[in-house]
Amino acid sequence: MVKEKYMEKANVLIEALPYIQRFNRKIIVIKYGGSAMIDDELKMHVIEDAVLLKLVGFKPVIVHGGGNEISAWMRKTGIEPQFINGLRVTDADTLEIAEMVLGKVNSDLVTMAQQLGVRACGISGKDGRLLTVKRAKPGMKDIGFVGEVTEVDTKIITDLLNDDFLPIIYPIGMDKHGQSYNINGDHAAAEIAKALKADKLAYLTDAPGVCTDPDDPESFISELFVEEAEKLIDEGVITGGMIPKVRNCFRSIEGGVNRVHILNGGIPHCLLLEIFTDRGVGTVIMKDGVKYYNRERSE
Amino acid sequence: MVKEKYMEKANVLIEALPYIQRFNRKIIVIKYGGSAMIDDELKMHVIEDAVLLKLVGFKPVIVHGGGNEISAWMRKTGIEPQFINGLRVTDADTLEIAEMVLGKVNSDLVTMAQQLGVRACGISGKDGRLLTVKRAKPGMKDIGFVGEVTEVDTKIITDLLNDDFLPIIYPIGMDKHGQSYNINGDHAAAEIAKALKADKLAYLTDAPGVCTDPDDPESFISELFVEEAEKLIDEGVITGGMIPKVRNCFRSIEGGVNRVHILNGGIPHCLLLEIFTDRGVGTVIMKDGVKYYNRERSE
Amino acid sequence: MVKEKYMEKANVLIEALPYIQRFNRKIIVIKYGGSAMIDDELKMHVIEDAVLLKLVGFKPVIVHGGGNEISAWMRKTGIEPQFINGLRVTDADTLEIAEMVLGKVNSDLVTMAQQLGVRACGISGKDGRLLTVKRAKPGMKDIGFVGEVTEVDTKIITDLLNDDFLPIIYPIGMDKHGQSYNINGDHAAAEIAKALKADKLAYLTDAPGVCTDPDDPESFISELFVEEAEKLIDEGVITGGMIPKVRNCFRSIEGGVNRVHILNGGIPHCLLLEIFTDRGVGTVIMKDGVKYYNRERSE
Amino acid sequence: MVKEKYMEKANVLIEALPYIQRFNRKIIVIKYGGSAMIDDELKMHVIEDAVLLKLVGFKPVIVHGGGNEISAWMRKTGIEPQFINGLRVTDADTLEIAEMVLGKVNSDLVTMAQQLGVRACGISGKDGRLLTVKRAKPGMKDIGFVGEVTEVDTKIITDLLNDDFLPIIYPIGMDKHGQSYNINGDHAAAEIAKALKADKLAYLTDAPGVCTDPDDPESFISELFVEEAEKLIDEGVITGGMIPKVRNCFRSIEGGVNRVHILNGGIPHCLLLEIFTDRGVGTVIMKDGVKYYNRERSE
Amino acid sequence: MVKEKYMEKANVLIEALPYIQRFNRKIIVIKYGGSAMIDDELKMHVIEDAVLLKLVGFKPVIVHGGGNEISAWMRKTGIEPQFINGLRVTDADTLEIAEMVLGKVNSDLVTMAQQLGVRACGISGKDGRLLTVKRAKPGMKDIGFVGEVTEVDTKIITDLLNDDFLPIIYPIGMDKHGQSYNINGDHAAAEIAKALKADKLAYLTDAPGVCTDPDDPESFISELFVEEAEKLIDEGVITGGMIPKVRNCFRSIEGGVNRVHILNGGIPHCLLLEIFTDRGVGTVIMKDGVKYYNRERSE
Amino acid sequence: MVKEKYMEKANVLIEALPYIQRFNRKIIVIKYGGSAMIDDELKMHVIEDAVLLKLVGFKPVIVHGGGNEISAWMRKTGIEPQFINGLRVTDADTLEIAEMVLGKVNSDLVTMAQQLGVRACGISGKDGRLLTVKRAKPGMKDIGFVGEVTEVDTKIITDLLNDDFLPIIYPIGMDKHGQSYNINGDHAAAEIAKALKADKLAYLTDAPGVCTDPDDPESFISELFVEEAEKLIDEGVITGGMIPKVRNCFRSIEGGVNRVHILNGGIPHCLLLEIFTDRGVGTVIMKDGVKYYNRERSE
Repeated sequence: MVKEKYMEKANVLIEALPYIQRFNRKIIVIKYGGSAMIDDELKMHVIEDAVLLKLVGFKPVIVHGGGNEISAWMRKTGIEPQFINGLRVTDADTLEIAEMVLGKVNSDLVTMAQQLGVRACGISGKDGRLLTVKRAKPGMKDIGFVGEVTEVDTKIITDLLNDDFLPIIYPIGMDKHGQSYNINGDHAAAEIAKALKADKLAYLTDAPGVCTDPDDPESFISELFVEEAEKLIDEGVITGGMIPKVRNCFRSIEGGVNRVHILNGGIPHCLLLEIFTDRGVGTVIMKDGVKYYNRERSE
Repeated sequence: MVKEKYMEKANVLIEALPYIQRFNRKIIVIKYGGSAMIDDELKMHVIEDAVLLKLVGFKPVIVHGGGNEISAWMRKTGIEPQFINGLRVTDADTLEIAEMVLGKVNSDLVTMAQQLGVRACGISGKDGRLLTVKRAKPGMKDIGFVGEVTEVDTKIITDLLNDDFLPIIYPIGMDKHGQSYNINGDHAAAEIAKALKADKLAYLTDAPGVCTDPDDPESFISELFVEEAEKLIDEGVITGGMIPKVRNCFRSIEGGVNRVHILNGGIPHCLLLEIFTDRGVGTVIMKDGVKYYNRERSE
Repeated sequence: MVKEKYMEKANVLIEALPYIQRFNRKIIVIKYGGSAMIDDELKMHVIEDAVLLKLVGFKPVIVHGGGNEISAWMRKTGIEPQFINGLRVTDADTLEIAEMVLGKVNSDLVTMAQQLGVRACGISGKDGRLLTVKRAKPGMKDIGFVGEVTEVDTKIITDLLNDDFLPIIYPIGMDKHGQSYNINGDHAAAEIAKALKADKLAYLTDAPGVCTDPDDPESFISELFVEEAEKLIDEGVITGGMIPKVRNCFRSIEGGVNRVHILNGGIPHCLLLEIFTDRGVGTVIMKDGVKYYNRERSE
Repeated sequence: MVKEKYMEKANVLIEALPYIQRFNRKIIVIKYGGSAMIDDELKMHVIEDAVLLKLVGFKPVIVHGGGNEISAWMRKTGIEPQFINGLRVTDADTLEIAEMVLGKVNSDLVTMAQQLGVRACGISGKDGRLLTVKRAKPGMKDIGFVGEVTEVDTKIITDLLNDDFLPIIYPIGMDKHGQSYNINGDHAAAEIAKALKADKLAYLTDAPGVCTDPDDPESFISELFVEEAEKLIDEGVITGGMIPKVRNCFRSIEGGVNRVHILNGGIPHCLLLEIFTDRGVGTVIMKDGVKYYNRERSE
Repeated sequence: MVKEKYMEKANVLIEALPYIQRFNRKIIVIKYGGSAMIDDELKMHVIEDAVLLKLVGFKPVIVHGGGNEISAWMRKTGIEPQFINGLRVTDADTLEIAEMVLGKVNSDLVTMAQQLGVRACGISGKDGRLLTVKRAKPGMKDIGFVGEVTEVDTKIITDLLNDDFLPIIYPIGMDKHGQSYNINGDHAAAEIAKALKADKLAYLTDAPGVCTDPDDPESFISELFVEEAEKLIDEGVITGGMIPKVRNCFRSIEGGVNRVHILNGGIPHCLLLEIFTDRGVGTVIMKDGVKYYNRERSE
Repeated sequence: MVKEKYMEKANVLIEALPYIQRFNRKIIVIKYGGSAMIDDELKMHVIEDAVLLKLVGFKPVIVHGGGNEISAWMRKTGIEPQFINGLRVTDADTLEIAEMVLGKVNSDLVTMAQQLGVRACGISGKDGRLLTVKRAKPGMKDIGFVGEVTEVDTKIITDLLNDDFLPIIYPIGMDKHGQSYNINGDHAAAEIAKALKADKLAYLTDAPGVCTDPDDPESFISELFVEEAEKLIDEGVITGGMIPKVRNCFRSIEGGVNRVHILNGGIPHCLLLEIFTDRGVGTVIMKDGVKYYNRERSE
């Protein structure tokens, strides 16, 4: 009986072996946001996962938002948050608060990672000119200091990775004239992943991955090639709000990322489970022609 | 006449030559604070100076405070700033604001430096575990989350310098348990300079250097060895508030720094003028036995 | 329920985190022999463990024997094996067979490791002059070509480790005149571990570690400092054949190894379980003063 | 008279100068086999030559067989050797013996080289996945575990060369499933030379090079370009068994080797003499267009 | 008033900032000759300029002649100097003197540079086979040992630059047979600059740059693109002896140099003034399409 | 018979093997002067030897004089050479000529070495501040610009060796004020060898090494330890002018050189023969305790 428990433990580690091997020294960009950022325990689990990935040889890069806290601080100073098409209307005061709050959230994540024994370095998209932006005009509307990434200078990230740091990034960038801009976190993560030619881009979302039955989170599809995903859209299996999400993944893949993961951030340690177990806990969308991911397919 | 103007220009550059040569690849820690942080033009000049020092081969490291803006933001959210012995009483709310405001000030300095063409990276004392602290108890009084530096891990700074970044640091550290603390900027700068065995530590203050006549800012003493400075204290030339400042410099020098400069931050480009001209614009205190600084002595 | 299974898996990985972190880039010499070499499944598990250790950042070095197969081949060619004090009497013919059989066993282990995805390189103690020996004369008796290690040249191992290979070593050495000698595997492993200043030396034996109750393999002591071990010998807790084994460990520790593990090679994945779980599955003997190993102590 | 002897010695060294210079840091793959492997003195001379080549700046790589000893050991264990078209029929038992014997021969060559002061490292085609093979089916006949090379991974050789080792290789490889195979030595050497883009591939054979008069070993042709060799075949100067040998050389040259030497292994120090003297002692076949070898042509 | 003087000094340094930044680590080949070589003070200023350029991050390479001194020494040994089309007729005796005198001038420049604190290394075009030449036959006339550069091997220069030396070069080269040749200094400098893909090639001449009014040295044109220069030739603004000079610059630019400067060597510190001030003191001719040089244009 | 000739050639190369091996990557400083500099053929042989030594892995450094040519040029310009105690009286004019002539001789040696296929770089003791000197006052007499070495900065030599150049040095140095000085070649070579901790320092002289019978050049002693040499002086075997020479060697050995060779420069290829044959052609004086040189001793 004791031996059984032993063997179970050993088997979990051994099950991880081929994945550790395959993704050794690969870059994984983790977009961290949503409800996984609110629950303190989930937050710790995400950071634990990133640290473990780093220790077993991956090169994780965290990009995070700070949505709830920004709104809270805005209200504290008497400003009512406003959104257009899901993007925060950002006047000068809002920008100042956003920058301060994101910097603070960033600093807290750095603390957590370091308590687990790695060295982390928190940066914004301004440090090392990581993210150069221009003013975004979604649907030709001006929503203030919201930036669209026009250039990514990855030197600061690759330097930090080579120097064995865990980079933790918050999405504030600057334009050619030195003006700061707030950037949508998903957008920033995708641009960074593409510029780094990351092997993986993982989104921690508030939904399971792509499901065949929207009412059953366990019906998520484990692996999808781009071509297959297009077909599922055509066939009406992928529907509604999931369509733009999946199409977004296509763009990252076209830009040079090998695999994009859509994970349910509400599952503790979803990153580890997705990457180190055969079934995973979300959907991975892959470039056509990339070698099979080796886990049991779900259909 | 045209030629005369030419020659003047050339001579300024040529006058700088021996200093550029002597301090090539040397680390200079710049403690930036006081009124030089409020005036926008002075701010730009300080950053220009740091960038020029970097370009001609120095390795500048900026440590800055953010005093005025922290108090302003505290009042915005309804907290009245309080000081004991010049140290800010720092409860949890004050700490949160301090961290956010310093992060924002830091981010602005990064922007300015990068507009001048170098790559900068803004970090706090938490990044890469740069500054480990314990709770400070000045005079056995508890003034909250104010930290005293117990350990400096310079890896993140030396990595950034080797990767050709200009590090800009704000003085927030963490203790062994991951709790954040506010740190006095002068204290942080001195500890960093000692740990780096910096060649120079330059304080931008609101006063000229050490003066023989307190009423005449032009009476500043250009160069002082530790032994001489002790004697001037004994002889009553250095008096009042200047005594603890000078004694502070002694401690940095004992800790391994070669030269500590006390500069009048109100003089535009005081850093350049101090370092690249023969008379300088402040007082440099030097380790006994260090080779003469080569500029005309002031007595 | 599904989530429960998830969490268990995740927890095993997370439990491993501090150990992975602590022993990152550390050298671990694994002496592999005994019954774990006979059972094909156990053999595979040992190699899987070594490969996993390598992938998560350790630098494993395997030293193996080949006892049973040597005797079998001797009999095949008409020679009856003979032992004095546990050392094989080795005439010229026996030496030739030993060298051939060990080479073959080595080659098979290389194959297994490579099937798991790493690059391995099999070497003997002659390659790169790894092990220089002289003729051993245990109790002044001549037992033929049995070598005692007089010099270890670690260049070939450190080169292979730096070039990202898994070194697998069989214990044949040569003397100053180019004569080959058979070497006892435990002896070779200890000398190599000392010369490498390995962090760990792990013996896969046919017994559990040091037990307080010889009849209960679950009574093994998880951690022992040298000083404690001496006391247990004095107090009669450690007795009989375990005394020389433990004393052997002392010598390796004096020679510069930080931790020596005595493991029951009959437990599948005993290496992983020993290193990555809190209780472990054997006894680790540590240098006095080395930081606690962090696992729950056993008394 | 004494001076004359001096001058002779000096002249031999000076004659070698242009060749040492031309082939500095060039890779030379030496296929060592045949009668030069049986005579102990010749064996020592071959190793001396390889060591000297290494010391004067070449990068020699030795590939050897072990024909006679394999058959001898097979008979010792009661198996009668069998050949089809010059390839050894290799059942499982034969393979086991071949692997053991080749490993032992390899180990002896390593010893000899190291007695001469260099560091050598003996490896098989399995180490570092050097040689991946598939089952050879010459003339569609199954002759057992005889491998045909499908892939060469030169990392282990280039790493050993960079780390200043002399690699000595025996021709056992493995297929994708981890099954071992025996490989013909000439075939292995040619594949390795091509994969390394070696400057030279030298075969130590039991015949002089290409001769114009088969009965006069001194009639060997010193240098041949591929085109010339083709013509000599057409003209009937090269005949019989020499034709396939020469055609083999063509294939190596097409594969990227600059020069293939056919040497009489029976001449002591044939390698040195071939490479460091103007006339040489064998035939070198060269890529058309390669610069002349600088030695006096033979016609 | 004191402050004014301060500010002027600071402004000169700050004015230099963008140029230092733009040309950081760029190679600048300085052809040093003419009257700036005769006046001892001018000589010192040229070397000071080169040293300062080196210290602020440029990679200067000096190529110099020695015209006057060669003629003086020729006369000392009883030979009358002779010129055809500005090239020195060079018989064997003249060549010997030229080589000796240039070597001596070179050695003196090395001394001067080193007195200013850098390490210099004086070389000829023969060292490291920097300049391979053939006999020049201008207008099919034989003027003796005057060489035309056929090959530049930059290894020795790039090695010296990487090892932090200031290379100072005199224009003697050798042909394939080891025969030495005298080379025209302008020709040597241009060939070296092209082979190094230097960013800048600066000629210290006895005239101001390209002037719109030949009688007013202050009418020099500060910046010219190749296309513009062609037009000025067509329009008759550039005339006479300046036409071949400018066309020479075109060839260097075609060969890979970005900017060619024509400076009046008679202005003290002309190099510093040209490079670090907005108006400059000579004419820079630039590749079409190269980014604007940023200084105020002169028309 | 043909084979015999083969074997002789091979044997010469093989005889060299242990010496090549022992001195691999070792620095050998060759002081080249005397009659071996006058005879053109001997000159070529010395350079050939240095080139061969370089190609087989040594790091040769040549230091040369130029005695005869300096006097010849002095006379050409009307100055009569004067010597005091073997040192050239050196006024300003003499110094100028010496510097020019040595530079020219140096340049010729560079040419010869490069014709043999290596890259050479000629430098003086001023380049890279190799030799800092003060005015020598032998016997308190002022003999002009003759320098005594006070400091050796080996950076330029080690850089050139690392960059694979053959450094050829002429003995002109400079003092702290930039004044040039002529240096005795033997003195310069010894100081350079000591500063480099050279393995060997070889003097090419006009006499055989230390002889037991002054009338028989074949009676030279092949190997001497310092202690033995002292004894031979006491016993009257070493006498006369050989005593100061031998004592000079002692000083180099005390300064860190392992072996000092005194060679007869009149024997063609004396360097090769001394180093690569068992008897050698001169006397080597060795540090007591250094391992035996391996050649047959001469007694």
